[in-house]
Amino acid sequence: MLARTCLALALAIALPAMADDAKKTPTPKELLAKSAPAEWRTPDPQNLVYMDLPQGRVIIELAQDWSPLHAANIRTMIREHYFDGTQIIRVQDNFVTQWGDPDGDDKKKAKSLGTAKETLAPEFTRKGGSYPFTRLPDGDVYAPEVGFSDGFPVARDGKGEAWITHCYGTVGVARDTGAETGNGSSLYAIIGQAPRNLDRNLAVAGKVIKGMEILSAYPRGGEPMGFYDKPEQRVTIKSVRLAADVPEAERTPIQVLRTDSKTFAAVIEAKRNRRDDFYTRPAGKIDLCNISVPVRDPR
Amino acid sequence: MLARTCLALALAIALPAMADDAKKTPTPKELLAKSAPAEWRTPDPQNLVYMDLPQGRVIIELAQDWSPLHAANIRTMIREHYFDGTQIIRVQDNFVTQWGDPDGDDKKKAKSLGTAKETLAPEFTRKGGSYPFTRLPDGDVYAPEVGFSDGFPVARDGKGEAWITHCYGTVGVARDTGAETGNGSSLYAIIGQAPRNLDRNLAVAGKVIKGMEILSAYPRGGEPMGFYDKPEQRVTIKSVRLAADVPEAERTPIQVLRTDSKTFAAVIEAKRNRRDDFYTRPAGKIDLCNISVPVRDPR
Repeated sequence: MLARTCLALALAIALPAMADDAKKTPTPKELLAKSAPAEWRTPDPQNLVYMDLPQGRVIIELAQDWSPLHAANIRTMIREHYFDGTQIIRVQDNFVTQWGDPDGDDKKKAKSLGTAKETLAPEFTRKGGSYPFTRLPDGDVYAPEVGFSDGFPVARDGKGEAWITHCYGTVGVARDTGAETGNGSSLYAIIGQAPRNLDRNLAVAGKVIKGMEILSAYPRGGEPMGFYDKPEQRVTIKSVRLAADVPEAERTPIQVLRTDSKTFAAVIEAKRNRRDDFYTRPAGKIDLCNISVPVRDPR
Repeated sequence: MLARTCLALALAIALPAMADDAKKTPTPKELLAKSAPAEWRTPDPQNLVYMDLPQGRVIIELAQDWSPLHAANIRTMIREHYFDGTQIIRVQDNFVTQWGDPDGDDKKKAKSLGTAKETLAPEFTRKGGSYPFTRLPDGDVYAPEVGFSDGFPVARDGKGEAWITHCYGTVGVARDTGAETGNGSSLYAIIGQAPRNLDRNLAVAGKVIKGMEILSAYPRGGEPMGFYDKPEQRVTIKSVRLAADVPEAERTPIQVLRTDSKTFAAVIEAKRNRRDDFYTRPAGKIDLCNISVPVRDPR
């Protein structure tokens, strides 16, 4: 009985084939199979970061339009090989996995930032300006409006201020107490329930679009706040490169579903009101951070 | 700089000492230090499950008042040693860790359920009746009312129906397609963003009150839906016992903050409106599944 049990439970997210039945919600897999090529975008390789770990590759898309100063600084550090050999220094359960120079706090031992800047304007939010925004229908506990903008989960205050939210997979810029003290040399990825209280208090550098299952499964650190208590517990990052600097033939082929596409809207609606042999009481609603943006290997 | 950076970021959840400053929000640690003994409860050992894994002990509190038939069936299986030697069979990223008999679907190989029942009434929700309820002030995307009841995160439809929500750490009953097919022999714990679409479609058996960092950090399975593709990837459960069946001297001392206490209300308020040297823009709101109920070792 169990395998069927497991399969049935897994319908929540996974995408089994489904018989024709007008009453059943189409699965994301079925919807994606019918998508048009133009509904997919290939991220700009200048905004794609390959972080190669012993367990595999993590791909981060930088939020160029939301934190351009941070994106530029991170690119500088990547190109000067700042991150190569840095480490996963902290994994706090249901919160963040953080990486960087474990000696970054010791001025005598800290790795040089090279030509990158030590401090940056905060870029915690964005005021005014124009950007695509596909609003979600069900509201939000934290903000008057939420939706997606070019693949990023975004909240708005209704008065012209907007920010990328701290959903699962969001990559943020660790900082010291002062708002201008973040520079991108230490980054964190959200690995649990979205800690939305971080919104507007930290700069978002981008989001993981592939490889979250690597960052989320490291052993949690035993020190307060999830820092590893022994240096040997830290995983060493092999290299961090920009896709733009990798020969085209060696890049990881990846496309992201456009968040202003009809297919993305259909995927959201299917999740809001899922009906099939297993789900008999659809939620009728969906929270911003419960939506993951589909990616695919276009080959 | 990094260590300070890390510390500063970590203030979001961790609990450093803090200077006296009227403008600053007290930390949970400070609030808990001032709590009264009567604000803590010791869970009934008949409702406490010790699941011993090679990586340590996971403690689950059964939701006796919300799914009594399931609690009784699980107790029967525990006492007949059904779970000893069963395995972690599935870890799907940002969703669930599931355990049970890997051969449960094969009637010839499946472990006997002993005197436990094969099917149970669903117990997906609770209608009417009286139970404690401490309502949260900021609303919810999915339900008209949310709050806590004896430590469990609960949603209500405003018409007399209530259910435990699928927050991080909630333990649910895997089932087959039919609503009555769950029996507690395979359980899952939520390890990511709360999949609230499961609410009202599955029975909740209880919640993990200690040891989530073990269940959340297993490698994700490579098969669809996170099943492990090789039997050797599965972690074997050493034993599952009820605290009531363990000699008192060998029990894990644990207390849970009462969710109808003043201190719990103060902890929630401090999280809603956190102000300190790091957080300059408090969220002003909090989502149900962003609140974890404090536990402590009373010794």
